[in-house]
Amino acid sequence: MNLEVLTVGTELLLGHTIDTNAAELGRALAAAGVQIVRRTTVPDRAAAIRDAVAEALDRTGAVLTTGGLGPTRDDMTKRVVAELLQRPLELDPVALEALEARFKRLGRWPMPAVNRSQAEVPRGATVLPNPRGTAPGLWLEDPAADRLVIMLPGVPSEMRGLLVEEVLPRLMARQQRAGGGGGGESAQPRVVLSRTLRTTGLPESALAERIGPEEEALAPLTLAYLPSETGVDLRLTAWGLERGEAERRLAAGLERLRGSLGAHCYGEEQTDLAAVVLEAVRRRRGHLAVAESCTGGLLGERLTAVPGASDVFVGGVVAYADRIKSELLGVPEDVLAQHGAVSEETVRAMVVGAQRAFLADCAAAVTGIAGPDGGTPEKPVGTVWLAAAAGANIRVVQRIFPGDRGEIRARGAQAGLDLLRRLLLEP
Amino acid sequence: MNLEVLTVGTELLLGHTIDTNAAELGRALAAAGVQIVRRTTVPDRAAAIRDAVAEALDRTGAVLTTGGLGPTRDDMTKRVVAELLQRPLELDPVALEALEARFKRLGRWPMPAVNRSQAEVPRGATVLPNPRGTAPGLWLEDPAADRLVIMLPGVPSEMRGLLVEEVLPRLMARQQRAGGGGGGESAQPRVVLSRTLRTTGLPESALAERIGPEEEALAPLTLAYLPSETGVDLRLTAWGLERGEAERRLAAGLERLRGSLGAHCYGEEQTDLAAVVLEAVRRRRGHLAVAESCTGGLLGERLTAVPGASDVFVGGVVAYADRIKSELLGVPEDVLAQHGAVSEETVRAMVVGAQRAFLADCAAAVTGIAGPDGGTPEKPVGTVWLAAAAGANIRVVQRIFPGDRGEIRARGAQAGLDLLRRLLLEP
Repeated sequence: MNLEVLTVGTELLLGHTIDTNAAELGRALAAAGVQIVRRTTVPDRAAAIRDAVAEALDRTGAVLTTGGLGPTRDDMTKRVVAELLQRPLELDPVALEALEARFKRLGRWPMPAVNRSQAEVPRGATVLPNPRGTAPGLWLEDPAADRLVIMLPGVPSEMRGLLVEEVLPRLMARQQRAGGGGGGESAQPRVVLSRTLRTTGLPESALAERIGPEEEALAPLTLAYLPSETGVDLRLTAWGLERGEAERRLAAGLERLRGSLGAHCYGEEQTDLAAVVLEAVRRRRGHLAVAESCTGGLLGERLTAVPGASDVFVGGVVAYADRIKSELLGVPEDVLAQHGAVSEETVRAMVVGAQRAFLADCAAAVTGIAGPDGGTPEKPVGTVWLAAAAGANIRVVQRIFPGDRGEIRARGAQAGLDLLRRLLLEP
Repeated sequence: MNLEVLTVGTELLLGHTIDTNAAELGRALAAAGVQIVRRTTVPDRAAAIRDAVAEALDRTGAVLTTGGLGPTRDDMTKRVVAELLQRPLELDPVALEALEARFKRLGRWPMPAVNRSQAEVPRGATVLPNPRGTAPGLWLEDPAADRLVIMLPGVPSEMRGLLVEEVLPRLMARQQRAGGGGGGESAQPRVVLSRTLRTTGLPESALAERIGPEEEALAPLTLAYLPSETGVDLRLTAWGLERGEAERRLAAGLERLRGSLGAHCYGEEQTDLAAVVLEAVRRRRGHLAVAESCTGGLLGERLTAVPGASDVFVGGVVAYADRIKSELLGVPEDVLAQHGAVSEETVRAMVVGAQRAFLADCAAAVTGIAGPDGGTPEKPVGTVWLAAAAGANIRVVQRIFPGDRGEIRARGAQAGLDLLRRLLLEP
């Protein structure tokens, strides 16, 4: 099945908002065997939305829109689509009830009048309940003309929830109906499937030298390198195979790559390095604390972003001022005076101090120069000292990271987690 | 001037990467009076890239590509464009030298052979130096045919640097040449300009009720509400006016909105609330510390993401386990036992404990239930207690935030910063 995606929002074209929905949609639809044949972005203007929806329906017959379902004047997708398809807007009592219940629950009662319009739906549309926000999704199908318009809100968490819970099941059912329509044995649908291995600690070109020789053997799978500030993801994709065949080939390709990568690979798909570290500490029935300077809380944030971190992660100290490194982490003042806050000696004292202050057997520490100021010829911006401790085992390394303040901090937090992961892997 | 943007990357269509470059480009080009008339995304396949570039050149005459300039096999934009325009690839000695210098500086010497291809450029192209990465940008212009291809790397920080330092000045110069080409007095170029006010603490519909009556008076400016988990940005846009006129109207519109918004508005454009808070503490020559539980480091991370935070921000405690709240922040154990970790009494003791532990006059504290587990009928997931202290003045509020774990944490950190900002605004 082919589908076009239309993201509505002047803010997307002008760049005031980043289009995260496009990525969510791409991933979910490809996995369901639906191919996005075009992605278009138009501003919040009735004529632009109408033209784009009409063109997409003429060309492809199916379009999924995001955005323009909110309560304010610049939200006009629903109205425009209703006019285009000549389906008058009608108040949906079930949608209104859900909307009012939400406002009551969040203590915002009475509901503002402006939100009432969000319960109006084009005649004949199926309302897709949106427990995460005020704008329900809409599914508007005209089987006679073989046309389908799916409208989802632009808020990412709402879009995502509606996609998974409401849209994908309906699209799968629709494909099965279409596949079985001929009466005979239907062909297996062909899908685009990807699998990802996550690596960190090696730059893209070093990875390419390591696994380049494998690439020929992976055909017909394609291999993409996706570098980011936290590492390089390797994405294997199977194009247009039957699902079973695609899965078998991907599994074999992944195993081959894993063999070349060894400890540089820390997981698959969306695996977060922080979750890998927490799991490693959990397996040894340990506890984890952090001490951070230049990352300023990011290391703790990464770990506590993982649901259920609290059985392992105890806490952390953000020791931004040097006196805090002494007072809360016990870094000796003469170490700071002699070697500086960004040094092997200081980071070692920080990691031991975190173990002691939090009574935790495992700890990670980061101190560095994130810039833009503070660099010297001996310690340029990007210089970061990292330490990891597991019981009496301690590892300390220095890295020089490229990039701006944000990138250096992100790389520092990732490298701190990775140092601890590799230490915990040791027998 | 019209321009098409082509983002290259299978990972974008399949949704493995979020297209942040599109937003950067939109913002910078609109401000320079360049209109993006179409945005297209194609996979890392030679035929798809070639077709898209050829179509864009036929249709619009100018295309800016991002992505596909890396050292690995899936990077093919440069090769495809060179073939399409019949410009053979040649090794550029200056680009090679810059590339080698970078590898030496980062201590990765000798340079991997695979990177050498990144110094090859289509004959006649201008190399746009990229000090942030290995792939230089390329500017390939054919004045006779009035065709322009700009190729930038896909890594966001590299794309952004090249755009600002190399591409925008060249595009401005090109527009001036084009404008003066007629020989007579050239018309002022018309631009699309936007200004943004940032608000937090009021939901979108409450904001709309407050400023809705102003909207008519803002014409011909358009007003867009851009809700996110940290608040609602209000974007005013002037379309196709001369620059001076656009700027005057936007300034007047902004003043009108600011009057309606009062303290709910914390800044303009990209202003970060954390920077506003740091500046308010700096003005009173104070110091700032944080104590956080459910945000796990995010509050400290937000503050230290601001360059130069260290003259104001001293540090923080991530008190994830209850015993850390007692041991490092002095929250009495009977307060925790009687009222629980998520309570008015605990958050008040946390903020005072942060003032004391860090010898800071200002502090913020957050404790709550970020989910997905841990909610109860009395304290559902999303319940967050916030505290702010400035000297002896202390404010404590409870909020119930919608959303998932990540959103609740982001909203909690933002609300903690905002509580302190409002407290510091008081006379």
